[in-house]
Amino acid sequence: MNGERHQQWKVVILGTGAVGGLYGAKLAVAGDDVTFLARSDYHALRTSGLHVETPEGNLVLKRPQVTRNPQQLPQADLVLVCWKATANAALEPALHACCGPHTCVLVLQNGWEIERDVAQVIGPDRVLGGCCFLCANRVAPGRIHHLDYGGITFGEYASSTRGTITERVQRIARHLHTAGIDAQPCADLHLARWKKLAWNIPFNGLSVVLKADTRQLISQPETRALAEALMREVQQCARSVSGVEVYDAHVAKMLADTEAMVPYASSMLLDYRHRRPMEVEPIFGNPLRAAIAAGYHPPRIDMLYQLLKFIDRRNQSGAAG
Amino acid sequence: MNGERHQQWKVVILGTGAVGGLYGAKLAVAGDDVTFLARSDYHALRTSGLHVETPEGNLVLKRPQVTRNPQQLPQADLVLVCWKATANAALEPALHACCGPHTCVLVLQNGWEIERDVAQVIGPDRVLGGCCFLCANRVAPGRIHHLDYGGITFGEYASSTRGTITERVQRIARHLHTAGIDAQPCADLHLARWKKLAWNIPFNGLSVVLKADTRQLISQPETRALAEALMREVQQCARSVSGVEVYDAHVAKMLADTEAMVPYASSMLLDYRHRRPMEVEPIFGNPLRAAIAAGYHPPRIDMLYQLLKFIDRRNQSGAAG
Repeated sequence: MNGERHQQWKVVILGTGAVGGLYGAKLAVAGDDVTFLARSDYHALRTSGLHVETPEGNLVLKRPQVTRNPQQLPQADLVLVCWKATANAALEPALHACCGPHTCVLVLQNGWEIERDVAQVIGPDRVLGGCCFLCANRVAPGRIHHLDYGGITFGEYASSTRGTITERVQRIARHLHTAGIDAQPCADLHLARWKKLAWNIPFNGLSVVLKADTRQLISQPETRALAEALMREVQQCARSVSGVEVYDAHVAKMLADTEAMVPYASSMLLDYRHRRPMEVEPIFGNPLRAAIAAGYHPPRIDMLYQLLKFIDRRNQSGAAG
Repeated sequence: MNGERHQQWKVVILGTGAVGGLYGAKLAVAGDDVTFLARSDYHALRTSGLHVETPEGNLVLKRPQVTRNPQQLPQADLVLVCWKATANAALEPALHACCGPHTCVLVLQNGWEIERDVAQVIGPDRVLGGCCFLCANRVAPGRIHHLDYGGITFGEYASSTRGTITERVQRIARHLHTAGIDAQPCADLHLARWKKLAWNIPFNGLSVVLKADTRQLISQPETRALAEALMREVQQCARSVSGVEVYDAHVAKMLADTEAMVPYASSMLLDYRHRRPMEVEPIFGNPLRAAIAAGYHPPRIDMLYQLLKFIDRRNQSGAAG
């Protein structure tokens, strides 16, 4: 935590997976009034609490405030949307309960245009979007293993505010900082999203197609070259869709960071292994369609999307792969 | 068999897998003096014979002439190279034994420029190349299951003869016909190879990446579209490398044939499952490099090649996928 004093906020965390568990625990330990909306982990959280193992030590909430009824959520200063976009059917009752006129909703999901579902419920003006750079897994109900990294880059969603870091974004960043969360405001959420997709598209996608962790993918010359080629296509998507440049230095950094990273099974690979629906549309389908609509057809992203649709459908049907 | 009388030829069959077993059995039943060079199937062939189950009935050679010593092969009128290109290290002693000045060597392997290995041993002038359109599997040593199709399109390899159907190609075609083999001479082996690759590249490749049979691949919209996109890239490879046109009607026919086909695990998928080396270089690496050298970089074929290199290396290492 930084020197600045932590003011108590009312925070609602939607989803108690790796992202929601880690950030929710940090905010609660720092003194916030945090309520979790849980589904399958509800009983574990009620009976055994929330346990987050981090590289710097362990965080334990013995009695987290947790509900599985969205209508029981309190009105919040800040809502973090941490479940996967595949769970968004539950957004509407939750947001209606916890959003007041001054509530900010920070969407920490992966993909392109994934804030749209939230904006359709509460309008775009209270919506922020953020990208987590985080190696963490939910290893069991109520148990999170945080392996590496942990920062958030976030900014305003509404197109009217594109290019500016608003006062409330700065305020939220300071608040998160005092809870030990490395939160970086950004003026252009588009750019942040494309920079994140430059990692998610190759490494989530290839990890599922090849059933491989990040170390295996980055250490073989063919898959490293393929990951880089996919990143180049994301660069072109960013230019075509948003008119922004994901610099080559970012591509080089993503590759170098992945080399330096502990071997990591992507969240999409874990979803595959547990036969949960995968975020194929948010991470692959949405950017692909946006690029095609903007006049650029990325061939490798399209191919990865097609492979993943096949794999996800078979996996959901219960058939062996 | 056709009305024409079958003349006895001396035939050597290199490899006793699906291709060598089926065509060798047909030629032997028709009256040819057929010798098989076998490796792992040697004992099964010696003790139990060769059994080929076909849609029209079963062919059985109780006592096939079979050797595992290439130096014991007789000099032949016709040699069929039927093992996979991954076994070509054994070519040289075999060809030295069975090739005389008038021997023709018909290479029935999959891929691009796979006749080169044979031509390096005996020079290009006695080399022919052929593509099999065949659903057949070696289900056990000495046991072949022929499911569907069965034709061969073949022609001269030497570039000096490109564009012509030579007298010897016509003679061999007639001979194969009298043994009930649908053998079609072609004037341009390049075109035949690209037409075959238009099937092999999508369906061998995707079957291994997705662990799926042809029916599963063709019946899902995403993988059907991906197979077609890969065929389009093969069309462009054919234009760039060889200046020939694989017509859209051929692409449509390949897709329709695959729909009509019995569900079929490609030979590459069987190689994968049995942890045998896969024909990644002949079917993917060689055409890819030829296309790039000709100024066209096919992105999806490149990606498929990269995925398969990763899968093949891991599979050969014995690791789980």
